[in-house]
Amino acid sequence: MDVAMVNDNNLSKIATNNGHGENSPYFDGWKAYDTNPFHLQHNPNGVIQMGLAENQLCFDLIQEWIEANPSASICTPQGAFDFKEKAIFQDYHGLPEFRTAIANFMSQVRGNRVTFDPTRIVMSGGATGAHETVAFCLANPGEALLVPTPYYPGFDRDLRWRTGVKLLPVVCESSNNFNITQEALETAYEKAKLDNIKVKGLLITNPSNPLGTHFDKETLKDLVTFINDKNIHLICDEIYAGTVTAGDEFVSIAEIIEEEPECNRDLIHIVYSLSKDMGFPGFRVGIVYSYNDHVVSIARKMSSFGLVSTQTQHMLASMLSDNMFVVNFISESRIRLAHRHDMFTRGLAQVGIGSLESNAGLFFWMDLRRFLKEPTFESEMTFWRIIINEIKLNVSPGQSFHCSEPGWFRVCFANMDDETTMIALRRIKTFVLKNKMLEVKIKTQKQCWQNNQHLKLSSRRLDEILTPHRMSPHSPLAWMSPHSPLASPLVRAQN
Amino acid sequence: MDVAMVNDNNLSKIATNNGHGENSPYFDGWKAYDTNPFHLQHNPNGVIQMGLAENQLCFDLIQEWIEANPSASICTPQGAFDFKEKAIFQDYHGLPEFRTAIANFMSQVRGNRVTFDPTRIVMSGGATGAHETVAFCLANPGEALLVPTPYYPGFDRDLRWRTGVKLLPVVCESSNNFNITQEALETAYEKAKLDNIKVKGLLITNPSNPLGTHFDKETLKDLVTFINDKNIHLICDEIYAGTVTAGDEFVSIAEIIEEEPECNRDLIHIVYSLSKDMGFPGFRVGIVYSYNDHVVSIARKMSSFGLVSTQTQHMLASMLSDNMFVVNFISESRIRLAHRHDMFTRGLAQVGIGSLESNAGLFFWMDLRRFLKEPTFESEMTFWRIIINEIKLNVSPGQSFHCSEPGWFRVCFANMDDETTMIALRRIKTFVLKNKMLEVKIKTQKQCWQNNQHLKLSSRRLDEILTPHRMSPHSPLAWMSPHSPLASPLVRAQN
Repeated sequence: MDVAMVNDNNLSKIATNNGHGENSPYFDGWKAYDTNPFHLQHNPNGVIQMGLAENQLCFDLIQEWIEANPSASICTPQGAFDFKEKAIFQDYHGLPEFRTAIANFMSQVRGNRVTFDPTRIVMSGGATGAHETVAFCLANPGEALLVPTPYYPGFDRDLRWRTGVKLLPVVCESSNNFNITQEALETAYEKAKLDNIKVKGLLITNPSNPLGTHFDKETLKDLVTFINDKNIHLICDEIYAGTVTAGDEFVSIAEIIEEEPECNRDLIHIVYSLSKDMGFPGFRVGIVYSYNDHVVSIARKMSSFGLVSTQTQHMLASMLSDNMFVVNFISESRIRLAHRHDMFTRGLAQVGIGSLESNAGLFFWMDLRRFLKEPTFESEMTFWRIIINEIKLNVSPGQSFHCSEPGWFRVCFANMDDETTMIALRRIKTFVLKNKMLEVKIKTQKQCWQNNQHLKLSSRRLDEILTPHRMSPHSPLAWMSPHSPLASPLVRAQN
Repeated sequence: MDVAMVNDNNLSKIATNNGHGENSPYFDGWKAYDTNPFHLQHNPNGVIQMGLAENQLCFDLIQEWIEANPSASICTPQGAFDFKEKAIFQDYHGLPEFRTAIANFMSQVRGNRVTFDPTRIVMSGGATGAHETVAFCLANPGEALLVPTPYYPGFDRDLRWRTGVKLLPVVCESSNNFNITQEALETAYEKAKLDNIKVKGLLITNPSNPLGTHFDKETLKDLVTFINDKNIHLICDEIYAGTVTAGDEFVSIAEIIEEEPECNRDLIHIVYSLSKDMGFPGFRVGIVYSYNDHVVSIARKMSSFGLVSTQTQHMLASMLSDNMFVVNFISESRIRLAHRHDMFTRGLAQVGIGSLESNAGLFFWMDLRRFLKEPTFESEMTFWRIIINEIKLNVSPGQSFHCSEPGWFRVCFANMDDETTMIALRRIKTFVLKNKMLEVKIKTQKQCWQNNQHLKLSSRRLDEILTPHRMSPHSPLAWMSPHSPLASPLVRAQN
């Protein structure tokens, strides 16, 4: 059914312009996984999905709660008497108890340092729907939002596809740990002006997807100053607010505007969701929380297109009102995420693979720059194909996040159990070691050739032989040239 | 929070142009109901909601099923082991068992005379989301769909607001029982051409909302011929397919295209939902079923904005796969709807109020033309305000459905229990009788005046005294002039 798109005059431009952005390696990786998904028992050699930012580490706590609270559901003998009332409720304000519970949860996740007004809670179909709603409210087709790079690939679909809104990159660089600089912001803003594009806002993800970092107060205040100076909107995607690892503190934009009375609150909008912090992407709970009354009113009218099922609203209202459960869940989730994050990054460090320092999100930003044959996005793609086809891990290449530098990959670590994590790590280690052996063999052979004077191959020539285009795409050697920086640290480490 | 809209340059045109269509009396009626909702015990003098097309007549059957099937829910001790798997599932194809169950249900509702392919089932956030999705797929901003009048007021929001698509009326008239004529279709099409508007499709509701009628085979075949001749799309909203009263047979477009091999199937699209036939508007199950592969593929990508909660998918997959339950539910629902429809229309006939003959939907099309002071939409509004403020019933005036003739009102009858139905009927009867008494009194008094020659009031003058603008808006006399056609049939009937 998923046919290649053709230009069909009978359909709309939206239907035929590929604007949905699924022609990105980010989604290609998902497809590769889909055709050969790993399963511990049934398909142990399949592709392990590390391209999916899912939080699966605390479902035991949820299940316990469910079993202890059968009356929270309209689909239990204990709760069914409420079935009719909930099934017929379709008010776009949502169940009052649901909005109150969500406001409470948003506050708990932010350490109870800020409160949220239930009357400003607007539902949407996941964060996907929430972002589209905000874009529809703030910008006309052709107008733009600034977005620091690297950014979540889905934004190209969510904010642009049906709205006609543009996303303009604010280029962030590794030299600076991908922090947003005033200069980068101004450059992006001025470039838009030169290109005659009206900038309507700045969109940030805090904690950042894909970096796994979160903003400090100073940076957030600078951003608030910037958008107030320009009189443009600030959209803060805080869907990973609850994933900041134990011992660190997330700062929400909600706190900043309390401290910045000069800030025009009409410009501030938060996107939230339960897909990441609670791990319920299937329930499609997206929230627009705007400080702008007009946006609240209009977004609520738009929520008719993506209301949350009342069956789900009802159940979550009950679950998220249980403060003892919520506090324990958030705390335990942060501990488990920190543990998994460390387990993974340390395992990679053992084979010389580094990553950007981070302490939030369900992923980290893996640095494979020195593993690329050349510092190009072509090399990045070549290397990514090896990872997916040989190591059989679906990680996402930086270019799909509009990263300005090749060689970075997002690795998701919370959508699997410990055993799968160990297998993923083992695969990487095996691959690295195997190639180190091959490299030693090649080196020896090369020495032989040179010694015997039978062959006059230059290193350069050997490189060419070993480059991907000369080799089977499935060869583990495809990405491994003698000049590859891969070998050196390993050799150093082991020799 | 629901502030009056102002033109804020910082927001988009969509956010400031009132295109959401909520400034219609259709929604005003809802608001009137919301401020003073009827409740049998707590507010017996409140407004009875007869503006909401909800099917509440068979929830006892649903509740029975729920209680007998606790393992169908992931929120029961019996089903919770599946919680994680469902909560994390967010594939826009939907749970395979859900798609299969929906295809099965769609077929059962259509008497098993056609089958539906589960791979063509695309989810959306209710029929609201389904219609917007189809509009986004088929038409560019400024292009148009033809829609026979009267039509569902929500279409103005669903299909136009965020898409920029236009809806052009195909004018249907009471002289013809509001049937669609070839001439009306051609007139609308030619008018669009003259106005330089590209027509991309024809949108019908079958069964019709608000008429409560459904199309016969011949008419459907004519429509298929028309859209094929023009090479435009046909969108069939069949969300009331299961409401056709017992003894009659609904004909789906799915059947027609089986019999019309010449039809270009790429032009045929069905919108379906579980909000009406099952009575679950809160669950937000909308379906796009297209025979066009490109539309299936693109609509599925768009479904990311309005996926059905997997908690709900899972439960419905189980419920709608239970054929014994489904067959019994559909049959029982049709019987109960027929009973309620008859109960209401017969009750109204007793006080001389007629309606368009119908046998589907959750409503009928009440004919109050002869009750209007003048055959104008202003009079219709005046009369509607009396109904809502005096009789305290929220029925919906025809003009909100773009009806071409004033005096028609949609009356919903399936969103209340028998007791409320009786109260609604009693209120109408009391009102009519009270005004008949008053009319008699006025007549007598008028006779006296004329006899005594004390006053020289002409009938015209008396009319003026009795017209709404001279009277308290709460007076029951406001809509009742001596020339009102209300009295005559009643007087005839009782005298």
